[in-house]
Amino acid sequence: MNYRKSIEKAFDYSKALTDKGKVATYIPELANVDPTKFGVHMTTLDGQGFGLGHHLEKFSIQSIAKVLSLTLAYKILGEKIWKRVDVEPSGTKFDSLLLLDTNNGIPRNPFVNSGALVICDILMSHLGNAHKEFLAFVRDLSGLPNLVYSDKIADSEKATGYRNVALCNFIKSFGNIENDPAEVLDFYFDLCSLEMNCEQLARTFSFLANGGSKISDDTKIISTSQSKRINALMLTCGFYDESGEFAFKVGLPGKSGVGGGVVALYPHNYTIAVWSPGLNPKGNSYLGMKFLEKLTTHSELTIF
Amino acid sequence: MNYRKSIEKAFDYSKALTDKGKVATYIPELANVDPTKFGVHMTTLDGQGFGLGHHLEKFSIQSIAKVLSLTLAYKILGEKIWKRVDVEPSGTKFDSLLLLDTNNGIPRNPFVNSGALVICDILMSHLGNAHKEFLAFVRDLSGLPNLVYSDKIADSEKATGYRNVALCNFIKSFGNIENDPAEVLDFYFDLCSLEMNCEQLARTFSFLANGGSKISDDTKIISTSQSKRINALMLTCGFYDESGEFAFKVGLPGKSGVGGGVVALYPHNYTIAVWSPGLNPKGNSYLGMKFLEKLTTHSELTIF
Amino acid sequence: MNYRKSIEKAFDYSKALTDKGKVATYIPELANVDPTKFGVHMTTLDGQGFGLGHHLEKFSIQSIAKVLSLTLAYKILGEKIWKRVDVEPSGTKFDSLLLLDTNNGIPRNPFVNSGALVICDILMSHLGNAHKEFLAFVRDLSGLPNLVYSDKIADSEKATGYRNVALCNFIKSFGNIENDPAEVLDFYFDLCSLEMNCEQLARTFSFLANGGSKISDDTKIISTSQSKRINALMLTCGFYDESGEFAFKVGLPGKSGVGGGVVALYPHNYTIAVWSPGLNPKGNSYLGMKFLEKLTTHSELTIF
Amino acid sequence: MNYRKSIEKAFDYSKALTDKGKVATYIPELANVDPTKFGVHMTTLDGQGFGLGHHLEKFSIQSIAKVLSLTLAYKILGEKIWKRVDVEPSGTKFDSLLLLDTNNGIPRNPFVNSGALVICDILMSHLGNAHKEFLAFVRDLSGLPNLVYSDKIADSEKATGYRNVALCNFIKSFGNIENDPAEVLDFYFDLCSLEMNCEQLARTFSFLANGGSKISDDTKIISTSQSKRINALMLTCGFYDESGEFAFKVGLPGKSGVGGGVVALYPHNYTIAVWSPGLNPKGNSYLGMKFLEKLTTHSELTIF
Repeated sequence: MNYRKSIEKAFDYSKALTDKGKVATYIPELANVDPTKFGVHMTTLDGQGFGLGHHLEKFSIQSIAKVLSLTLAYKILGEKIWKRVDVEPSGTKFDSLLLLDTNNGIPRNPFVNSGALVICDILMSHLGNAHKEFLAFVRDLSGLPNLVYSDKIADSEKATGYRNVALCNFIKSFGNIENDPAEVLDFYFDLCSLEMNCEQLARTFSFLANGGSKISDDTKIISTSQSKRINALMLTCGFYDESGEFAFKVGLPGKSGVGGGVVALYPHNYTIAVWSPGLNPKGNSYLGMKFLEKLTTHSELTIF
Repeated sequence: MNYRKSIEKAFDYSKALTDKGKVATYIPELANVDPTKFGVHMTTLDGQGFGLGHHLEKFSIQSIAKVLSLTLAYKILGEKIWKRVDVEPSGTKFDSLLLLDTNNGIPRNPFVNSGALVICDILMSHLGNAHKEFLAFVRDLSGLPNLVYSDKIADSEKATGYRNVALCNFIKSFGNIENDPAEVLDFYFDLCSLEMNCEQLARTFSFLANGGSKISDDTKIISTSQSKRINALMLTCGFYDESGEFAFKVGLPGKSGVGGGVVALYPHNYTIAVWSPGLNPKGNSYLGMKFLEKLTTHSELTIF
Repeated sequence: MNYRKSIEKAFDYSKALTDKGKVATYIPELANVDPTKFGVHMTTLDGQGFGLGHHLEKFSIQSIAKVLSLTLAYKILGEKIWKRVDVEPSGTKFDSLLLLDTNNGIPRNPFVNSGALVICDILMSHLGNAHKEFLAFVRDLSGLPNLVYSDKIADSEKATGYRNVALCNFIKSFGNIENDPAEVLDFYFDLCSLEMNCEQLARTFSFLANGGSKISDDTKIISTSQSKRINALMLTCGFYDESGEFAFKVGLPGKSGVGGGVVALYPHNYTIAVWSPGLNPKGNSYLGMKFLEKLTTHSELTIF
Repeated sequence: MNYRKSIEKAFDYSKALTDKGKVATYIPELANVDPTKFGVHMTTLDGQGFGLGHHLEKFSIQSIAKVLSLTLAYKILGEKIWKRVDVEPSGTKFDSLLLLDTNNGIPRNPFVNSGALVICDILMSHLGNAHKEFLAFVRDLSGLPNLVYSDKIADSEKATGYRNVALCNFIKSFGNIENDPAEVLDFYFDLCSLEMNCEQLARTFSFLANGGSKISDDTKIISTSQSKRINALMLTCGFYDESGEFAFKVGLPGKSGVGGGVVALYPHNYTIAVWSPGLNPKGNSYLGMKFLEKLTTHSELTIF
């Protein structure tokens, strides 16, 4: 595996940084996580893997799961999905209500909270039991038959997630949520509560580096075109108000979560997951961003 | 040249569309352009070229020139440039004043009008004669020693460009314009008045597909890292409020202008320029967008 | 009673208008109201009254009740209340979420929905049973011992009031709602469900034309200064995005509701209530506004 | 004169305050004014006057002049004027560009800078020489035949007024400025450069307390209805983002300027002018606001 040296170098560099960012506190359960955790794992398309640090410890993947719910909804509905949510960067914070007003309840993209809520609503309208069927989908993608939602985390977020309640009801007031907002929120909080370690997360996302097919058995999950489009969305919208900066400094499609996880991928090559719970002011993993910037700068391998 | 068939197919498809968009009218001189013009030219890294339609007719490249002014400023100042302008998509129209207020006069990126004005200001502060030296820079990049600004177009825009006057003075009120706003605007209107044909435009931009070096003589214009970063910026911010859509549907870094030109590039492979004066509602070439979407969908060659 | 002639003239003028505005449809129960209803009643400080049209038919006073909840909260807390809500016109629609974001969850004034929700929250925190005690307060003010909330209207609004749910949870996310948002909303919907006829409404509000004392028995409800301040708030903020227009054309402090009611008062002189269910595009009674403009233009008696 | 005691009390109270606010620095010439200046003058309708402190020292009336330009434009055009500018409070800062975008270049009211620029444009379109004829109008109102524009102040503001240049060109881009923006700005800066002392200012504005007629010779300047409407506008929009607070705490129509002047009036009674150059954070005279609040609280004489 020829990336090993670059990974080790970037890992050592990032680990030595004294500033580790600030652990998210707005979800009480996440505030308890040890801020010194730092793990990274890369999976190449030929099935090799390489990990460092706490890469085998589970963490809350949070918003990273939004790529998976989008994938399932896109697989089911195809291009019709874009009538309900747009594909443009928002230029605003992840939980902003600002642009919904001017866009008649059409969220800017599926990765801001408002967009992810609409995707949840779509899945609920098209699946008999969205909670169960989405879990089955992620179990299949990840190869983790025992994966479950974390009630502790979902409950913790439910108890304090007033802004998401506001968002969901605001979109409902425009008619762009079909189901009961309380039920959509329940599903949304479940989805965000999934836990994986870096190795599992990298594996789960590797179908997006592989033209839409699982690397384990080459099963087609979504078409190559759909896979490319999800990658494009991750690049333009995967890091909220810092998406431009990530494209600029790292140069790979990726997605972050407030749990401190980041997954990124180099199409036709590899998928990489990093975890460090401290966040930068924009809400993305502080060390995760530093590590990936260092990695792609050193390896000079980016999509640009 | 193996892209030839894909280009021909996409060209014929686009040419047959009855809707050609609407020619921009806010710059009087541009309103006179024949809406049926349609040309395309591709240049590969090994120096081959292939053109169709009106690919040898000159048109006003307008905002496409903003990539070239950014290149020169980036070359001169390096990363310090980002203290004056950000690298995030705006989520708003190209001439919006909205976000300047909340960002203390720091434009969201160098390709919205406000950002391009700041880049002009930077060049004026660092060059003896910005008009002349920028022209020399573009002459060298394009291999066109006789290239000149079009006074007719610059004057036409100057006579009606009230919103750009507003933008420049608004940024000046925050202290992020150092020179006299009227002089910065003069340079900005000159810059936007450059004219090229598709073949020249594709050639001029080919250094960005080539890691920052001209393909004619391999001269280094900017570093590989800088070249990648400009490509990243084109991907996230090159099409104003439609940047996400372009990344999503076309999947290449690119830049458009209200003259109906679009340039896009596939790193390590090719640069392509399209021209069709009719614009879509977001202000990008209607046929240009259709053509490029068709081309990359057919060839399946995108950065994602 | 010397206003009689002016009232009759303005009433006849308004009644003859063919355009009657559009009955509100977003609360299903309100959509059933007969659009041709039109009543008006004036009460002078010396206890005389004069009514015309359907002035003795009950209607849903809706947001007009927000002046009464503010009065009770102001009476209880005094000037401390203004730490939780501001006193500035909003420049936006009645249910806008826009400014909450920039003001950290402090609503612009107590008459936009967000502000009225905060007032409800304040009453819930300071009263044993806010529903019951507020009703007792309004019964006393109006002299209507049998006044009750309308369950039918409250339930109708509860079933469709997603935007108010959004507002309340959004403010809660900033910490400016102390109680459970669902309970605050319950109280808010109750409050808006009160029904009165024009005669009762004019009588209920007459304490604000009388320096804060009931005209029936001269009981002090609030201080003169508080009474003046509530009048000032009605003048600058009582008609949402049309407050300036009302001050400009009518020139009296007043408050409207989507049920088509408007109450206005001329300090030291009279209180007047109008009801006509058809609304203008800004959500205020179409005939109500026309009538009051005509009345004050004819009588030349305004605060200006 | 029965207000004398109230004025003295409020003057002494305000003068003793150690915080005097901050003198405006964005117009260089204003920054030189002595921050300890404090004067007040009241003129009653029966022609009596009473002054205290530096009430006979001239200061730059700045935005207070916008009421006079509105008066002249309203006198000339009548109600047609409201097609060009609205009558609603803005909810934003005095030089905001925010709402212009959503209102297609129609300023929210004639007292925010954007609205005052449109009024200047109207005067220029309807008068042979707006500078000269407006000055003649103010000379007549004030009874000051030698009143002139202050070149020193106008030039100082012209040299730094980038935001006003931005505003004027922005409105021009929507087509709501008919003349050359540079000439409109020249007139605007002239208008703002007028200087008066408190006694002169109170006298000049007394026609608005007198139903539109000068008190010196009872000449009709504008109709009673127009006079009432200008008073209503001052009440809802006279103090920028603090208009609600002024109505709430002072309860009189009024207008402030960044030179530290405030004029307010009690219809049918008196006109009062205060001057203290230190401003509060919203840009209104710190002592001026304190003085007027104290005065009306003590006298209990407000329009509410």
